[in-house]
Amino acid sequence: MSLTGAYDPENIFSKILSGGIPSVKVWEDEDVLAFMDVFPQSEGHVLVISKTSRARNLLEVEPEVLAKLTAAVQRTAKAVTKALEPEGFSIMQFNGEAGGQTVYHLHFHIIPRWSDRQLKGHGHAPMADAAVLRGLADRIAAALD
Amino acid sequence: MSLTGAYDPENIFSKILSGGIPSVKVWEDEDVLAFMDVFPQSEGHVLVISKTSRARNLLEVEPEVLAKLTAAVQRTAKAVTKALEPEGFSIMQFNGEAGGQTVYHLHFHIIPRWSDRQLKGHGHAPMADAAVLRGLADRIAAALD
Repeated sequence: MSLTGAYDPENIFSKILSGGIPSVKVWEDEDVLAFMDVFPQSEGHVLVISKTSRARNLLEVEPEVLAKLTAAVQRTAKAVTKALEPEGFSIMQFNGEAGGQTVYHLHFHIIPRWSDRQLKGHGHAPMADAAVLRGLADRIAAALD
Repeated sequence: MSLTGAYDPENIFSKILSGGIPSVKVWEDEDVLAFMDVFPQSEGHVLVISKTSRARNLLEVEPEVLAKLTAAVQRTAKAVTKALEPEGFSIMQFNGEAGGQTVYHLHFHIIPRWSDRQLKGHGHAPMADAAVLRGLADRIAAALD
């Protein structure tokens, strides 16, 4: 999929937002949802999406939505690092298939990193156990300011 | 380097901001500077940094600085895609050595992507020719809205 085109309301994140597909929520407010990536590249891999925008990528997103999203990414990253104490973390945001994007609803990845643990490939990681994700999400949510 | 510690005013981006080290500028205003990565992972790899904050990473950055930075990342990404017409692009932001960070002044990477071109490794790409970077920066700057 390219950088241009129409928003597909059948994409998996749209279905999560409408309740058609379950997700392991970390936190949400009226603007954003933070939830566990079911194909985590590392332990504690969280995604942050807008609940109000139909932007497919960074080019399309409304400035006020982007500001709320990145504030939510920072808030979530603080909780992830407090709860899981990684040595570092990476923020990634992919645009277009060539840019690494697999779901065409704008999203930010928060990926905790440890120097002695190899990062699993994006799109190649095994599906995680939901109970394990729920446990991680609860620890992260408890660390939110 | 870990996620905590003091800002080092001798870091390379600090020296770029103070004029002690040259950079190939794309654009700047009073808050942010966008410039070409001298070790580009792909053609048109741009970095965006704050000119006012001494935040080392996403955990430390002031909310209002973060909002200006991400707005600048979006503006620059729009110009990069208009000027260079990549098939996609990736935004990356690394925190801590384990998270992929090599310079401890918060920065966002804008990395154009083409499906038939391999991404060069972060920290392993060869140094680019300054005249080539200047040409790319001029094309991107001309595409700014």
